Amino acid sequence: MPKPTAGPEIERLIQLLAKVPGLGPRSARRAALHLIKKKEQLFFPLSAAMAEAAEKVKVCTRCGNVDTSDPCTICTDPRREDATLIVVEDVSDLWALERASAMNVRYHVLGGTLSPLDGVGPDDLNIRSLVSRVAEGGVSEIILAVNATVEGQTTAHYITDQLSDFEVKVTRLAHGVPVGGELDYLDEGTLAAALKSRTAFD
Amino acid sequence: MPKPTAGPEIERLIQLLAKVPGLGPRSARRAALHLIKKKEQLFFPLSAAMAEAAEKVKVCTRCGNVDTSDPCTICTDPRREDATLIVVEDVSDLWALERASAMNVRYHVLGGTLSPLDGVGPDDLNIRSLVSRVAEGGVSEIILAVNATVEGQTTAHYITDQLSDFEVKVTRLAHGVPVGGELDYLDEGTLAAALKSRTAFD
Ligand SMILES: [Zn+2]
Ligand SMILES: [Zn+2]
Repeated sequence: MPKPTAGPEIERLIQLLAKVPGLGPRSARRAALHLIKKKEQLFFPLSAAMAEAAEKVKVCTRCGNVDTSDPCTICTDPRREDATLIVVEDVSDLWALERASAMNVRYHVLGGTLSPLDGVGPDDLNIRSLVSRVAEGGVSEIILAVNATVEGQTTAHYITDQLSDFEVKVTRLAHGVPVGGELDYLDEGTLAAALKSRTAFD
Repeated sequence: MPKPTAGPEIERLIQLLAKVPGLGPRSARRAALHLIKKKEQLFFPLSAAMAEAAEKVKVCTRCGNVDTSDPCTICTDPRREDATLIVVEDVSDLWALERASAMNVRYHVLGGTLSPLDGVGPDDLNIRSLVSRVAEGGVSEIILAVNATVEGQTTAHYITDQLSDFEVKVTRLAHGVPVGGELDYLDEGTLAAALKSRTAFD
């Protein structure tokens, strides 16, 4: 655009909104204009909510979840059972499983998958802290809810090896997750069914 | 969701993001998580940009555009010619035309269209201020860049009547705009062509 259409503050807002997943450059303009028009109902509240969340968000030192408290809401929830840990690659998978499932359990977020070609080794993931949690005792089942990709399955095998000295059952999600698919994109029914018919990992 | 997954600040952020056009409830979760992960690069800057824009944004009292200054950037731009005014329904149309066109002119934003059934009459739109701008003199052409809808065309006829006492040429966008279509959704080539071959309004 050769000539300025709106003030620099609005142009900058549009540029940053365009970087939000789900919005492109054109949607960012529409979004900005909608916010401007709904100044009291949406723009001010969203602006305040962003400032507050950006300020308060932290990574849970126990499980790797993101939240505004550390330990996180899930780790401190007294109604969840400690005996089952669901291991996920990413926080988005944790959120997807929470939406899909009625299991009142706890999680462990790896923060990725083993990927030697990308230089991601065991120490780059939250695997050591997972082993520590199991070593503390009280965990009887680990559900490996990793993506059905090569990297996900490699990571699952590695974790199973690391846990072989412990009295813990290691399971994985039922085949029902499409091969090569990512948990995060699945519908909740598929996810819930896959979780229910999970099988022993061998 | 029966049990809390994340702190109330994050849940509130997701709820408000879901109201932004282009994002639904699920995209809002992905967007929130992306923001959290890109805290320094995106979350803080976007939060600051929103606060600043929300604080500073205002409606131009001369043309009806939204900007962070009043009069707006377009009204105060000395490189634009005063002789041509493009009349649009909405600020989004102004932005679309600016992106599409090389015309260095000024605008007038009506803020809607005449719609007796919805109780929108001439005094609910910025029509009186348009007539005043023409009465000031210096405007030789009014381009009615309203949507090709019944309401848009009704509004165009009304404005043409109101301007019949002035020495001003009233034109409209070339037929090239699909009938029933909204300017805002058109590609820039179509909009530029329609603007170039505009015809006398009669
Ligand atoms: Zn936690
Ligand atoms: Zn203006």
